[in-house]
Amino acid sequence: MPIKPGTLTAKGRETKGRIVAAAARLMFENGVADTTVEDVRAAAGVSNSQIYHYFKDKTALVRAVIEYQSDAVIEPHEEWFAELDTMAGLRQWRDLVVRKQRELNCRGGCPIAVLAGQLAEYDEAARLQLAHSFARWSQGLRTGLLAMHANGTLRAEADPEALALALLASLQGGLLITQLNRDTKPLETALDAALAHIEAHT
Amino acid sequence: MPIKPGTLTAKGRETKGRIVAAAARLMFENGVADTTVEDVRAAAGVSNSQIYHYFKDKTALVRAVIEYQSDAVIEPHEEWFAELDTMAGLRQWRDLVVRKQRELNCRGGCPIAVLAGQLAEYDEAARLQLAHSFARWSQGLRTGLLAMHANGTLRAEADPEALALALLASLQGGLLITQLNRDTKPLETALDAALAHIEAHT
Repeated sequence: MPIKPGTLTAKGRETKGRIVAAAARLMFENGVADTTVEDVRAAAGVSNSQIYHYFKDKTALVRAVIEYQSDAVIEPHEEWFAELDTMAGLRQWRDLVVRKQRELNCRGGCPIAVLAGQLAEYDEAARLQLAHSFARWSQGLRTGLLAMHANGTLRAEADPEALALALLASLQGGLLITQLNRDTKPLETALDAALAHIEAHT
Repeated sequence: MPIKPGTLTAKGRETKGRIVAAAARLMFENGVADTTVEDVRAAAGVSNSQIYHYFKDKTALVRAVIEYQSDAVIEPHEEWFAELDTMAGLRQWRDLVVRKQRELNCRGGCPIAVLAGQLAEYDEAARLQLAHSFARWSQGLRTGLLAMHANGTLRAEADPEALALALLASLQGGLLITQLNRDTKPLETALDAALAHIEAHT
């Protein structure tokens, strides 16, 4: 039976983490619907009783994968969020995002958006969890833009929340079109337009 | 065995169209991976030999669904594309897009993007077909912006192709965040930012 997080031993946490990492990789590579608990069990190299000890069913695995992918996508950017309070900082972040896609050969798109496309209409709890992940992302971008507003870089009448949301939308739409075309140009164009729009409010 | 399009009778075209419409609905509602040929056959009310007469396998059905959804999404906008050559025309189109999402209670997102999220990494032919659908969309937006450039509404140094691509990215990203939050605000914010960016080039 599934056990509560706080009660895991170090070995238990390691095993559970290995299962989630395997599930995230398989669901990213093969899609959520085509990934079975048995596939995850085999890829993680654990027994049947072990996997069901931590996850009562595939739904529980999907929940854990959404958290895992959200952390994996957002955490590396967290150090950047504090620096998104100047146009130069925003442009460096833009270059980082584009470089990352180039390294991935524009494959995969945004892991949170991919899960959203596969789950939002079929699993209401997953939709809410994914909306929360986007809110975390958006919050990170807002931090910098609110700081730019507070320190006077953005004009008083600018709406930093709206600018952050528009930047997030340009990022997501740009990533999707870049993924489909295996070309970073759409992402670059989308982010450059969003940054120019922000700069127009300085 | 599958037959060539030109050789279909009116009745054959009707049957084939009914199968594709059923497949599109089921793949939109339940996801591509969870839709079987048998599900489509039952929903379309055709026999086993009929469905395999038109589609040799699920892959062939997916191809037809991508075309069907692309036409369904793009064709109603085509009459608009010709009017996207003024800021007022662009704003009317923005209102139309937002109203449509409100009517749908923000469910479903963009049908082409949803297929992209489910297929782009798992089916290379589908990825190319979906990239082509996005190019058709983009071409429609470009038509208006190129006209605005040609008639001097957009300044000479503006890049109408980049503006069209940025608008498409804002639309897609805005639709995704609107779908996840069941709220049209993200879509409105994203489109308003993209239109303000275009207007800054007038």
